[in-house]
Amino acid sequence: MKLVIVGGVAGGASAAARARRLDEHAEIVILERGPDLSFANCGLPYYLGGEIQQRSKLLVTPLERLRVRYKLDARPHSAVLRIDRAAKQVVVRDRATGREYTERYDKLILSPGAKPRVPEIPGGDLPGVFTLRTLEDTDRIFARLQDVQHAVLMGGGFISLEVAENLARRSIGVTLVERNPQVLMPFDAEMTTPIVQALRAKGIELILGSRVTAIEEENGGTLRARLADGSSRSCGLVLAGIGVEPETHLAADAGLELGVRGAIRVNRHMQSSDPEIYAAGDAVEIQDTITGQNGVVPLGGPANRQGRIAADHIFGRSLTYRGTQGTAIVRVFDLTAACTGASEKTLKRCNIAHRAAYLHPANHAGYYPSAQQMSLKVLFDPTDGRVLGAQAVGGDGVDKRIDVLAMAIQGKMTVYDLEEAELCYAPPYGSAKDPVNMAGFLCSGILRGDQPQVTVSELVEQQKSGRIQAVVDVRGADEFARGHLPGAVNIPVDELRGRLAEVPPGRIAVNCQVGMRGYLATRILMAAQRDVVNLSGGYQAWQLFAGAGLLG
Amino acid sequence: MKLVIVGGVAGGASAAARARRLDEHAEIVILERGPDLSFANCGLPYYLGGEIQQRSKLLVTPLERLRVRYKLDARPHSAVLRIDRAAKQVVVRDRATGREYTERYDKLILSPGAKPRVPEIPGGDLPGVFTLRTLEDTDRIFARLQDVQHAVLMGGGFISLEVAENLARRSIGVTLVERNPQVLMPFDAEMTTPIVQALRAKGIELILGSRVTAIEEENGGTLRARLADGSSRSCGLVLAGIGVEPETHLAADAGLELGVRGAIRVNRHMQSSDPEIYAAGDAVEIQDTITGQNGVVPLGGPANRQGRIAADHIFGRSLTYRGTQGTAIVRVFDLTAACTGASEKTLKRCNIAHRAAYLHPANHAGYYPSAQQMSLKVLFDPTDGRVLGAQAVGGDGVDKRIDVLAMAIQGKMTVYDLEEAELCYAPPYGSAKDPVNMAGFLCSGILRGDQPQVTVSELVEQQKSGRIQAVVDVRGADEFARGHLPGAVNIPVDELRGRLAEVPPGRIAVNCQVGMRGYLATRILMAAQRDVVNLSGGYQAWQLFAGAGLLG
Repeated sequence: MKLVIVGGVAGGASAAARARRLDEHAEIVILERGPDLSFANCGLPYYLGGEIQQRSKLLVTPLERLRVRYKLDARPHSAVLRIDRAAKQVVVRDRATGREYTERYDKLILSPGAKPRVPEIPGGDLPGVFTLRTLEDTDRIFARLQDVQHAVLMGGGFISLEVAENLARRSIGVTLVERNPQVLMPFDAEMTTPIVQALRAKGIELILGSRVTAIEEENGGTLRARLADGSSRSCGLVLAGIGVEPETHLAADAGLELGVRGAIRVNRHMQSSDPEIYAAGDAVEIQDTITGQNGVVPLGGPANRQGRIAADHIFGRSLTYRGTQGTAIVRVFDLTAACTGASEKTLKRCNIAHRAAYLHPANHAGYYPSAQQMSLKVLFDPTDGRVLGAQAVGGDGVDKRIDVLAMAIQGKMTVYDLEEAELCYAPPYGSAKDPVNMAGFLCSGILRGDQPQVTVSELVEQQKSGRIQAVVDVRGADEFARGHLPGAVNIPVDELRGRLAEVPPGRIAVNCQVGMRGYLATRILMAAQRDVVNLSGGYQAWQLFAGAGLLG
Repeated sequence: MKLVIVGGVAGGASAAARARRLDEHAEIVILERGPDLSFANCGLPYYLGGEIQQRSKLLVTPLERLRVRYKLDARPHSAVLRIDRAAKQVVVRDRATGREYTERYDKLILSPGAKPRVPEIPGGDLPGVFTLRTLEDTDRIFARLQDVQHAVLMGGGFISLEVAENLARRSIGVTLVERNPQVLMPFDAEMTTPIVQALRAKGIELILGSRVTAIEEENGGTLRARLADGSSRSCGLVLAGIGVEPETHLAADAGLELGVRGAIRVNRHMQSSDPEIYAAGDAVEIQDTITGQNGVVPLGGPANRQGRIAADHIFGRSLTYRGTQGTAIVRVFDLTAACTGASEKTLKRCNIAHRAAYLHPANHAGYYPSAQQMSLKVLFDPTDGRVLGAQAVGGDGVDKRIDVLAMAIQGKMTVYDLEEAELCYAPPYGSAKDPVNMAGFLCSGILRGDQPQVTVSELVEQQKSGRIQAVVDVRGADEFARGHLPGAVNIPVDELRGRLAEVPPGRIAVNCQVGMRGYLATRILMAAQRDVVNLSGGYQAWQLFAGAGLLG
């Protein structure tokens, strides 16, 4: 068996190591066009910021180890020019010597990754305008950073936010320009409010709903980025983090079947339309586990598993890739934002029935020091309660709850299962009722009719249509005074039973700070035969929506 | 509806709040024999150590709020003396006034909790000998602590270890005496080695396999604890953390059906043998979700959920308690130990077929600063791969992985599902192959026959029986020199292919540091037609067993 692998990072490196473990005698050739195989591309922003200090740390598995330990014929600087499917060979150019040669294969794995989009604007190709994909990119940026006082980042995705934080750590001023009205598109807009606030609090200039339209050279070696609003910023570098495209020209030229956005179409064994050719990583089309739709989701975890599964199938194992549920996480200064499954906007776009609920639990027992609040949004099926998605933003413990909910999604579990989840509890780690349990109680209560709720957007809609006629804020007078929903009447929950006569007539919504007192108030009013709903997530959810500019 | 609840902490308080939410008009009486309802008993050790500084923080829901917000007839100092099932009433003594009265009920919920075992040894009732259950206990201990230089803790369970740490934080010397040969009995012994080492490194004297046989008063107000080995320790106080017993005299006197250890037997709606009487919390018998056996598992999370489920059933909801899987966690200085599901010793005792695997992954990407290694043990069904249990000890991220595995157990997921788990990955939080994925790869590989393994105990057995004839250590010469298995031959994995002739004949085991290089070595040797197994978890697993005295 001779296995040739195109691309030596995440998917390719995983496939190679797995292949060697499964077949000691196979001939395994890895062709990587760059100088580095198996490098930590997710670590690049942290190297730029100095958190990772040694460049050598980014080389996860050194070339020598790949060659000796895994007995791989690992060839950097080796660009594959084309695939000759009939002859089962690839044409390779040694970029060091310029020599071209052919390499025969029994099986071929394509793991070419994705290439960053280059800004197609005037000046988009100037020196000082970068994308970040490889260690070489990083070296170039790193070299230039020494003289940079200000940087303009195009795009507000995961990597851009990581770079923004890391540049700020180096005391470099940052202007971040995102053409959408929100950063972190996999999240629903309101859930990004704390991130936007944190970025701005750290002095990062964040411009949403705008674009860099041109980049010009200035005297003195700096650049000037011109924005759609007519303003401009002087900067030492521009980094374009405006998305990636599957690197699939090889597959396309070879006539392999392509899917969404030109990504390589594969079956569940990661096999392309040519059964001798497999593909893995950011260049392949995946199926979304929630929506069932085909898409491109460039993530490190899936890339590694796909490479492994391709090797498994080649060497006689029948594992299948089950699809991607889009679990992702980003740290932005002291905050963590993480998500798994589908967002509400995706569910809407796909016409998938869903309910949404918001809560703001603490990461651990409130009586134990340093409890930190998170905002958690859970999306679930209104019929059977299956968990469809979750997003959380906050401090410690966000990653844990999203991982737990990711398992719930993978296991096709329901919000009723979340009620009964038995999770670690001691005061430094959680609560007797963990945030995941609380989410279960809330969502199950909605489905059982015990907790009639509206989301902020449903409230706004129902107020407009006249279906909700008043809002009663059941927080204390002091909290109410610090800010409240327009037109809300204040009746603290502890006084509500004695002041039922003051509750406005008609269908009403109640709100408190996070939803708990509102829940009790809803129950009190339901017992008084009132048509009432609780505002999911309370005033804090309102503030998330307001902060994202969603309230008009 | 008149609902009477006996016991106002975890299960009782949860039941009361839930009952009020479900029925605004029900009459709800909570009778608590102590002065405090709804207090944070899990926080008591941290209050002793000063981490929680304000006593008031331990009162989770103040009495006034229970009365006003939840409209509960909440009565502290109210001891229930007996239940008159025929008349559907309880006899109550007001401990403040001594007055006795009867209180009628439609439904009764018993949530009396568990009482700490009192040491039945000479001097076990001296002043200065304490158990820790209530805020009052805490106040008494706290008052005495001011004069204490040294304390003797009886028992090495979760609470004792928390107290040990917290006393050490106050610069109080601690001798901890545990009659079993290990601390933290829910864990398998070898997994407690890092905890034992951490306690000793912090200056705590830990005496395993011994007992305090008597306590005597000394001159000057101190105590002398005499141990089974004839030695003794002078100390300012003795704290007995030697387990708890379900507090079920009320239920027993009333003729309710009792189960294991006298705990109140309930059905899945938390209903006792008298359908008008429910029970919740540490006093009830539960079914273990893994073994199916009945038992008593006093944990805060289950108590809260049980109270809620009892209230649900009383008010017409049909939720069921699904059993307890024993998820638990403890912090011991910088370490965290957590477990879920069954331990290996429990599976053995119950004759449940299982396999065990060990690994020592880092909590996040190794190239990102401050990665911390954890030891992880996973137990799984050898036929279908279902996850049966997991234990982890280490630094950051232990709680997350055990919570994820707890969800896998709850969802009846398999080690094959762990391979495909899609968890949060960015360098500060995890790895592209998360520890949970790694566990899945390892356990699945064992089941598929790709990774023949033995545990340390299986290795020792097979060496004794002659089935394994040699051990090849595939680590580097420097690692080997720092310590290795008795009789092991050193052939570094990177040299193995060229030195196959040096590998001893017969069936052999290979080991490396954590199991990864050993896995590759196993594959190389299997390809050379050798009968070979990898030592699961490598030399670090060996050290866990050695540290626990399990190697003879």
